[in-house]
Amino acid sequence: MAAAAEPLASWAEGQTKQSIIDFVSDVSTEGSPNYVRPPERIAVFDNDGTLWVEQPLYVTILFAVDRVKVLAPEHPEWNEKVPFASMLKGNLRAALSRGEKSLIELVIGTHSGVTNAEFATIASEWIASAIHPTTKRPIKEMVYQPMLELLAYLRSNGFKNYVVSGGMVEFMRVWMEELYGIPPEQVIGSSLEMELVMRDGKQELMRLPKLLSFNNENAKPINISRHIGRRPIAAFGNSDGDLQMLQWTTDGEGARFGLFVRHTDADREWSYDRKSSIGKLNKGLDEAEVRGWTVVDMKRDWKRIFPREKE
Amino acid sequence: MAAAAEPLASWAEGQTKQSIIDFVSDVSTEGSPNYVRPPERIAVFDNDGTLWVEQPLYVTILFAVDRVKVLAPEHPEWNEKVPFASMLKGNLRAALSRGEKSLIELVIGTHSGVTNAEFATIASEWIASAIHPTTKRPIKEMVYQPMLELLAYLRSNGFKNYVVSGGMVEFMRVWMEELYGIPPEQVIGSSLEMELVMRDGKQELMRLPKLLSFNNENAKPINISRHIGRRPIAAFGNSDGDLQMLQWTTDGEGARFGLFVRHTDADREWSYDRKSSIGKLNKGLDEAEVRGWTVVDMKRDWKRIFPREKE
Repeated sequence: MAAAAEPLASWAEGQTKQSIIDFVSDVSTEGSPNYVRPPERIAVFDNDGTLWVEQPLYVTILFAVDRVKVLAPEHPEWNEKVPFASMLKGNLRAALSRGEKSLIELVIGTHSGVTNAEFATIASEWIASAIHPTTKRPIKEMVYQPMLELLAYLRSNGFKNYVVSGGMVEFMRVWMEELYGIPPEQVIGSSLEMELVMRDGKQELMRLPKLLSFNNENAKPINISRHIGRRPIAAFGNSDGDLQMLQWTTDGEGARFGLFVRHTDADREWSYDRKSSIGKLNKGLDEAEVRGWTVVDMKRDWKRIFPREKE
Repeated sequence: MAAAAEPLASWAEGQTKQSIIDFVSDVSTEGSPNYVRPPERIAVFDNDGTLWVEQPLYVTILFAVDRVKVLAPEHPEWNEKVPFASMLKGNLRAALSRGEKSLIELVIGTHSGVTNAEFATIASEWIASAIHPTTKRPIKEMVYQPMLELLAYLRSNGFKNYVVSGGMVEFMRVWMEELYGIPPEQVIGSSLEMELVMRDGKQELMRLPKLLSFNNENAKPINISRHIGRRPIAAFGNSDGDLQMLQWTTDGEGARFGLFVRHTDADREWSYDRKSSIGKLNKGLDEAEVRGWTVVDMKRDWKRIFPREKE
């Protein structure tokens, strides 16, 4: 039982784990030349591929697949419309063939037309029973145990952890408190336009079929700044979509920390990086070397990947 | 000295003060049927006219007046351009004659064209020495002592206080921690579009001359939802621009609290409401009566208005 209380227990001893401990100690030890007062200890985390799995498809697409089926009767036009028509025919590959454009259209179609409160209920119910397509385990168990320990370790050292993800913010907020201990106000994501409407004499927010912000690449530093108003001192990601967030964070004055999770374990998780269509990590790997960011080699650095797994 | 430790010491005994105490006790006493767990104890505050003065001009316009003078040599086109030309000729009334439209143009012109970091320095330096035009006291002392006590009282009862103001978010963030104890991430305001740029090999955020959101009326509930992701349980404002925020807050389930500050004290502060061009409180007063919101009568309910003032 002693191991459970040990911080970063699922991290193998070595340079990666040590780099985290050294940084945290450096900024949180009073008297250290790099001491940072607690309110400035802001850490930002990507979600898909950084805190939980993103293969073989982003969880948000798994959600969209289910929602397209449920919503199809209300949307006869989807039978003729890209990418919904392909998805309704069960041809997911065709539905996603236009990459980011397809993803955004699917998300807009399946996240709008309801109030925020209604959407929160839909998303909560979905996540409660969603099963991962290849592992057949609950989606909620497909989170990375070492990253949960890292979140807790930072929190116990006075850090405030934010998620900064390309995922839709209202989708993520319904489960992040339970899964990661991150409250809604510390979740930054992509967002739709909204409109204030009256329902039964009460104000509600209606989700419109129009994207306000796709929170990826350059948008991450911009949305961090809008939301937090401080430059973070530590940033954690796994793909080139997180590159600007890591640059933004580590360009600040004083001690800074950047980390990429590299997916190197085809047996226990997945193995992909420079050429992957999901979670591509290419420029980021080069930049990590130039800037001295930490790169997690999942196979080498993580003794355990998922919470219910034995070491 | 005992009085200083007493919560809400500058509030006169009576129904107004009691309504605040009753609500806070109701939601924060374990076992109360209206008990709210601490993470859900979110309170939102308007700023201008609610936490500090807004007469005879919004502080952001005082800042704009000074900035237009400083920036004029770089903007020869302002000599011909509404509203800058009038302002440069010292005709403030003409400069502001188109109301909200003029205000927004002035704000865009004086808040853009620099990086966020540069702007923060400009705003910090300005506020440090800015003097109020009629009272000749530092702007920083034109905050309402009873509201400072209210912020502290809520905080000590487990509330998280947010500012939700029509003011520009990056302008407010530089001084709100010092003046109100509200950190940058708890400040929601109007905002400009931004762009990620490289400066001397480092990323910076450039402020563009384009408004992203004017955080007033319907936009307040929308931006609260985007930023916080929870419906607040208490809302404090002073004008019809805050009406939707109070409605949004008090339309939620369980115990809710709405309060308008009504400016009724021409001797110690200003007296204005239904017909004022600044801080108009008209529909809000009617709605307060219908919904049972608390209305502060500044003259009757506040024993002291400003921090350095005696009772």
